[in-house]
Formats: sequence, C-alpha cells, structure tokens
Amino acid sequence: MIDLCTLGCGGSIPMPNRALASLYVRVQGRGLVIDCGEGTQVQIEKLGWGFGNIDTLLLTHFHADHCSGLPGLLLQLAKAHRAEPLHIYGPAGLENVVRCLRVIAPQLTYEICCHELPAQQSAFHACGMEVTAFPLNHGMPCLGYSFCLPRSPEFQREKAEALAVPVRLWRYLQAGQEVETDGRVIRPEQVLGPARQGICFLYATDTRPVPAISELGQGADLMILEGMYPERQHMEKALKNRHMLYEESAQLAKAAGAKALLLTHFSTRVEEPEAFLPMARSVFPNCDCAADGLTLTLRFPEEAQK
Amino acid sequence: MIDLCTLGCGGSIPMPNRALASLYVRVQGRGLVIDCGEGTQVQIEKLGWGFGNIDTLLLTHFHADHCSGLPGLLLQLAKAHRAEPLHIYGPAGLENVVRCLRVIAPQLTYEICCHELPAQQSAFHACGMEVTAFPLNHGMPCLGYSFCLPRSPEFQREKAEALAVPVRLWRYLQAGQEVETDGRVIRPEQVLGPARQGICFLYATDTRPVPAISELGQGADLMILEGMYPERQHMEKALKNRHMLYEESAQLAKAAGAKALLLTHFSTRVEEPEAFLPMARSVFPNCDCAADGLTLTLRFPEEAQK
Repeated sequence: MIDLCTLGCGGSIPMPNRALASLYVRVQGRGLVIDCGEGTQVQIEKLGWGFGNIDTLLLTHFHADHCSGLPGLLLQLAKAHRAEPLHIYGPAGLENVVRCLRVIAPQLTYEICCHELPAQQSAFHACGMEVTAFPLNHGMPCLGYSFCLPRSPEFQREKAEALAVPVRLWRYLQAGQEVETDGRVIRPEQVLGPARQGICFLYATDTRPVPAISELGQGADLMILEGMYPERQHMEKALKNRHMLYEESAQLAKAAGAKALLLTHFSTRVEEPEAFLPMARSVFPNCDCAADGLTLTLRFPEEAQK
Repeated sequence: MIDLCTLGCGGSIPMPNRALASLYVRVQGRGLVIDCGEGTQVQIEKLGWGFGNIDTLLLTHFHADHCSGLPGLLLQLAKAHRAEPLHIYGPAGLENVVRCLRVIAPQLTYEICCHELPAQQSAFHACGMEVTAFPLNHGMPCLGYSFCLPRSPEFQREKAEALAVPVRLWRYLQAGQEVETDGRVIRPEQVLGPARQGICFLYATDTRPVPAISELGQGADLMILEGMYPERQHMEKALKNRHMLYEESAQLAKAAGAKALLLTHFSTRVEEPEAFLPMARSVFPNCDCAADGLTLTLRFPEEAQK
C-alpha cells in the first residue's frame, strides 16, 4: 500500500489558509516528496510522518512556488541526523538551482545526489516504485511523474510442497530466481501465481493538457492533476499562464480511464475550490478537491478487498 | 508614531504554531521589514499591512531562518506591482546571497539595490528614520539595528507672527531653513521650540551579549532582543550557538535604561516562552514575550500623553 498526503494545494503564492502544492508519498517505510515550496517543511511537521525517512525529492520545475522551501527542508533533514544521500530529481538546470539555493544551507550532514532528467520521457526507481518522468507544457521545463508500485505474484505454497522444494529455497523462488534441488531445476513460474496488479498513480501540475498525462495514467488508481482555474471563463489565463481548467483535468482522467481524480494547485483567487466540483464531475464523476494535509491510502486490489 | 509587528517569534526552524522571527516596521506610510525567513510573506499577508508599501528590507545575517523567505517576498512585491527600487541592507556577502536566491525569482518588476554594510558600526536612513547597524557576535557576520525617528521642534506660530514672517515662508523655517523677508534674515531657531525627543527602538537577535546593544539602546522606547534560551542551564548551548539567555537580554535592557523589552526568537524546544518571564522580569521588570502577529505602537512623548 501507499500513503499519500497533499501537504498543500495552492498555486503561485502561499496563503494563510492554503499551503503551496506538494505531495508526500510514503511507501514501505520510505518517504518521497514532490515539490517543496515555501512552507512545505511546516506542513510535513504538522503531518507527523517525519523527516528522517524522506530520501527522495522530485521537483516538477523551478518556479519559486515549487522549490522555494528547499533550503529549509534540507536543513530539517540535517537536523533529523540524516547521513545517507538525498536524491533530488528534476528538469535540466537542477544542479544549478540546488547549488544556488544552498547559499543559505551550505553545511549539511549528508550528500545530495542531483539527477537531471532529460526533456523527453525517462524512468527510474524510487522507494521501490517505478517512476516515469514526462514533459509537460508550462513555458519552462516542467515534468509530470507517474508511479507504479509493482505487486509480485502470489507464492503458491501447495505447489512448492507438491514439488518437494525445501522451505529454505522458497524465498529465492519468491524473488523470481530459479533454484536447484535433488538435481532438478525449479523455475519461479512453477510455484508462483499469475501476475498481480500493482498500485499506480500520477502527479501533474503546471501544464496545458498533454497526451502523455492520459497515456501514462491509463487505468491509474489515482491521478492528481492541477485545478488552477475552475471555469471556462478563465481559459485566456489558462492559455497565457499554461495551466489547466478543472474540466481539462477531468477530461484527461476520463481519457485515461483512471479510477479517481484529485484536483490540486488552486489559484489564490479561488476561495472555495469545492464549489466548482460539479462541473468537473460532469466529465469525470469520481473527482475531488485536495486540501492541505489530506491523506489517503492506495491499496493493492487484494488488500482493498479485505 | 511607529507601528511594529513581530511577524514571527521563532528561531532556527519554522513551526506550525510559531513563525520565524521577523519584524514589520510601519512609519509614515512606509514599511520596513527586518529579516525574512520561510513563511514571513504569509505572516505579512495575515497582518494586512500590505506589501505595496515595503521599500526597505534589513537582513541581520544569512542563516536560512533569517532569509529563506526572500525569493517569495520579492515575488509578492512584484505581484503588488512594485515599480520603485527595493533597498536591501545586510552584512558583507549580501549581493551574492540575493543573486543566488534569485535563481528562482529572476524576473521582477523593480530594481533591487543591495547595500552591504561594513563590519563596524554604520548609519543610514530608511523610512524617515536614522538607522544604525552594528556588529553582533554570532560566529558569522551578523548585525543589530537601532532606529530613531527624529521629532522636529515645535513651530511656534506666535513667534513667527510677532516677527511678521509671511505664512508662505513658514514651511521652510519648519524644515530648518533660513528665510529672508523685508531684507531681514529669519533663522529657524527664532520660531522653533526646544529640541523634542524622537522615538527610538533597537532590534538584536542571534548574538552573545555585546556592549553596543546597551550603548545604542540608551533610553530606547523599546528593545527587541532574543530570548533563544530561557534558563541558565542552557548556558552551554548559548555559548556554543552564540545566542542569549532571557536573563542576559534583560541585563542589556537594564544597562541601557530602556523603557521596555520584548523577547523574541525563541528556541523550538521552548513551548511556552511566557513561562520563563519571571526570571527576566526579576532583572528588568517591563519585559514581555513577543508572539506571532503581535502589534504595538510607539508614540512621540506628546502623542503618548494625549
């Protein structure tokens, strides 16, 4: 399972009652944070999931509302006695941005590994998840991220017993490796069940609609997309500032056949993001608005049924 | 008169219930802010005194908790359609810090004038006040600031009338200039009352005690000093991290003969700063603890009596 928290849900400028958009992803005891604007560290403190387990930070782009909190977060991790490297992923230019912002956080207890991602789609692993970064359309290099936590096939004990595989070898088969016993080679597929569905979600803010969002979000358990502007009357602004309307995000979720959509990154001018949900729901019914500190858990299908 | 607001009162790290130490000074319709950590812009928004009138920013030093909010504040001022230059004062290294932090705020609507202050005492004017910057003892270049809003002598209308000075010339005399009328030279002191006391206050955090604090705070209406550590048992930490105990700040206020002392910049470990006030008050009775968003007004003596 994966725990998610929308640490903030605001765009552009932090507000007294709405922190800047950021997502905390907790999986298998490790933490990953997407974006880190001014105030994100305070939201993490409020949440209580801790700083010590955060080992990956993904930045979508280098507008201040998405990375101005970086020096403060880096210092928090040092205060949490971090010793292992912190991995930061982001678009080209990442190393320079991190180096510049560290002018006020020069001394840390750990190493920072910057991974500048290419302008085209790329993949890497983080916190046990397969992550795909893909280009958005925001007038400056900006990335969306899709995540998949794979689910290994079920180990079928009765088949292993029928084949007389010693228990000490089960874990190798479980991990997908062949084993040899009594001169016989046992292959994993002889004792494992069929492929099982993983947990998939996608995060994309600060963009006009691009096909990659619905392509990479195919059948996703959750899509978290921006709802910068609620109504069609804001289309001129959306085009100028390269953001999406509620309706456009809902259309992408529909095209993806996603299970759920969470809107975030609301304009400071929108006081009640929920007020405009009916329009988005007319396109994609299972749609909600994020809120600061909103947590939810995505489970593997078998877990969800329990 | 001068309005002051302690936008935050915390040291080191922003907390959910305590913003980083920063002071908003509003005088004659203009605004000056001392220090700008992560979250300061949100505190200004909450306060409601506006961004448009802030034309001076003083930084005490370059630890992140005192300047990490700079990019966000610069962007807020641009959003408030600022066109006039913004003046930023701070220790040597200021230009580099501002340039580096602007990696995420490159495009502004106004010019930034950086004033790097010398390591020794120096003076300048801001918002109609005489400002003195003076070195503190914090292990890195760090400045305290004292402020004096001068009070011009009273214009004694009856004397001007007795000297038959035309009304149109009064304002020059009021501004301290000689005027000529009917072949006579009239000097300001012929129509002005005795010198009047101005409003003086001082701000110093992040330091061990230094004599300049009490010297420049002589008779001040208010001293705002750090209360990083409340008790003597924290002396080792205070010495190591170059901060002051409540008691040490109280002694400086007493030595200065100040009228009032406000403690700020509390350690994150101190949950209730007020709980330790009795100790500080045993040294300097008119002592209080700052709080986020606490506002107070300093008045000229004649105004205060009204």
